[in-house]
Amino acid sequence: MDGPDLRCSVCDVVAGPLDWNCKACGGVLDVDAEHLRRTRPSTALLSEPAQGVWRYLPWLPVSEVLSLGEPTTPLVRARVGGAHVTLKLEGALPTGSFKDRGSALMVRWLATHGASEVVVDSSGNAGASLAAYSASAGLTCHVFTPRASARAKLAQIAAYGAVLHEVDGNREDVTNAAISWAADGFYASHCWNPMFVAGMETFAFEVWEQFGHDVPDAVVLPVGAGTLLLGAARGFAALHESGLAARVPKIFGVQSTACAPLATAWAAGSPEPAEVALEPTLAQGICTRRPPRGRQIIEAVTASGGMLVAVDDDALRRSHEELAAQGVFVEYTSAVATAGLVRLFEEGHLDRSDRVLVPISATGLKTSGT
Amino acid sequence: MDGPDLRCSVCDVVAGPLDWNCKACGGVLDVDAEHLRRTRPSTALLSEPAQGVWRYLPWLPVSEVLSLGEPTTPLVRARVGGAHVTLKLEGALPTGSFKDRGSALMVRWLATHGASEVVVDSSGNAGASLAAYSASAGLTCHVFTPRASARAKLAQIAAYGAVLHEVDGNREDVTNAAISWAADGFYASHCWNPMFVAGMETFAFEVWEQFGHDVPDAVVLPVGAGTLLLGAARGFAALHESGLAARVPKIFGVQSTACAPLATAWAAGSPEPAEVALEPTLAQGICTRRPPRGRQIIEAVTASGGMLVAVDDDALRRSHEELAAQGVFVEYTSAVATAGLVRLFEEGHLDRSDRVLVPISATGLKTSGT
Ligand SMILES: [Zn+2]
Ligand SMILES: [Zn+2]
Repeated sequence: MDGPDLRCSVCDVVAGPLDWNCKACGGVLDVDAEHLRRTRPSTALLSEPAQGVWRYLPWLPVSEVLSLGEPTTPLVRARVGGAHVTLKLEGALPTGSFKDRGSALMVRWLATHGASEVVVDSSGNAGASLAAYSASAGLTCHVFTPRASARAKLAQIAAYGAVLHEVDGNREDVTNAAISWAADGFYASHCWNPMFVAGMETFAFEVWEQFGHDVPDAVVLPVGAGTLLLGAARGFAALHESGLAARVPKIFGVQSTACAPLATAWAAGSPEPAEVALEPTLAQGICTRRPPRGRQIIEAVTASGGMLVAVDDDALRRSHEELAAQGVFVEYTSAVATAGLVRLFEEGHLDRSDRVLVPISATGLKTSGT
Repeated sequence: MDGPDLRCSVCDVVAGPLDWNCKACGGVLDVDAEHLRRTRPSTALLSEPAQGVWRYLPWLPVSEVLSLGEPTTPLVRARVGGAHVTLKLEGALPTGSFKDRGSALMVRWLATHGASEVVVDSSGNAGASLAAYSASAGLTCHVFTPRASARAKLAQIAAYGAVLHEVDGNREDVTNAAISWAADGFYASHCWNPMFVAGMETFAFEVWEQFGHDVPDAVVLPVGAGTLLLGAARGFAALHESGLAARVPKIFGVQSTACAPLATAWAAGSPEPAEVALEPTLAQGICTRRPPRGRQIIEAVTASGGMLVAVDDDALRRSHEELAAQGVFVEYTSAVATAGLVRLFEEGHLDRSDRVLVPISATGLKTSGT
């Protein structure tokens, strides 16, 4: 039952292991950074002979494994906007998206600390991923979803035995319904839970190994709630601090112009997410109007020397087609990042000779049925 | 342009590198076994540092790589029929199914030998996989499909830029249309092409490494055209012959009772596939009435000490649910193998303490939209 404290990122109060936010101020929680610094072995990053997420167990804030078979996600070279770049195929994870990195750690943590159920509000990749790991750990997973959700998306969630709660209203009504229902349960939003973000650090650890104990010049990621961007940035920073990596890559986040609170804030020089509307887009999966970790994301991007931009659906569609024509079929939200990369090349923020890495956050199979 | 000969498995005539069957007798072709025996290095199985299919390049009958990012597919432990068994998640491959092992080698071979287009008759996993690797290699892929095919299945194929040819009539009419259209092109059925089967040997190589240079007691696989079963059996046999593995696993093939030419032949003690009808089933993906390699499959199973059985849709559905409740969401055809394993336990052909491996041939995402 031991392990690191969870601390509020705003007021530094220590939270309970099952809290989803700070009970003092409502802020987002993080795994105690000092604890990680102290406990991460400097000589043995790898937990041989496992591959993937659990290969890095000595560097993770949990002490037991919960695995559905996570590979080290593969790299493939592709042409994007006239350059040769490296894609990392997160769709190879068990439920088909990068969310599995976070779900594995978060559900492992919740089970260790005595949770018997998990309450989430996502009908997309996060819901499917949490439903799968909950099933594996023997926890009941309650998934709150808008009544209008696509049947195909719910089929995978239902197959894992999760309990579906369909809610009338918009996305924020669904979140509120989940939080109030979970008053006597365990609300476990991937946007809030610090173990979910901690799991994303394994993305950086894998990249570092795959690049021969080095890092690329730049990593370009799609950003909604931004857990992958933030976890990757933290992972690269930890490798650098420990002396295992000589530097950190520049981190670039790309949003859809249909919902770009972070790119809008960046353009305005603001450290806080902007208030924005939500328009229709093919990239629904990254439409998060109020990312709880928005301030942290802007800080991480700034610290790395990168930036935040947004692209529209036309650019997204062109990039989706460019990849598919090379045999790489991606979810639309993944093409937001490659479309953003094209813009970064065109505007001179990145050079076509830079070593650039882009995660393909989920396989195109996730959206081909809808 | 060098490489092994292709030889007829029936009359031993040497075929051209782009032939899809024996022009002398119509038989199925194989990669010249003597060539493989002579050229495979006994001291260096691995092509470091790659993972997955291309890690075994020195043991493959092609000399150049064609990669879309193939991971070593992960293992996960699961409960099946009261036993703990090991599943190998082939859905982690780039297009979401085991077919990528075969497509990678076959398209690499065809491109090396000057093919400019590929003609296939599959609207399922094989079609999607061949379309993707063809796109990657710059070959035009023509996919012949029944006019009634599910739109969702065709979406992935079309995204890769393949040319769809919709044909009126049944499955055999589609095959005939593809073969006659391909008269001046390159018919490349995965059921016939020897490089496709050769690619499946990498399944065995990975298992051998993942089991610590050993093999499981038994491997239980779903069987339609049987390329995975046959390739795996050949891969294990090659490891054994070379002295790298002390033994071979027993190979068990499972079919759907809706279309079981091989299990029917097995029950009758016949070395040739039986003539059977085709009934409706959830396991459409493995309904192959006349598997071109049927005789080879029966021989391989016999040589290993295994057997062939069939299961109905009720058993399939129960097994699908048992896996999903543990967080493993599989395509229906994959659940045919686990349902067959339950039967093998119940009938005493396998013991629950045996080390059993079952490939999950494709992710459930492949069928959740239909
Ligand atoms: Zn606080
Ligand atoms: Zn012949």
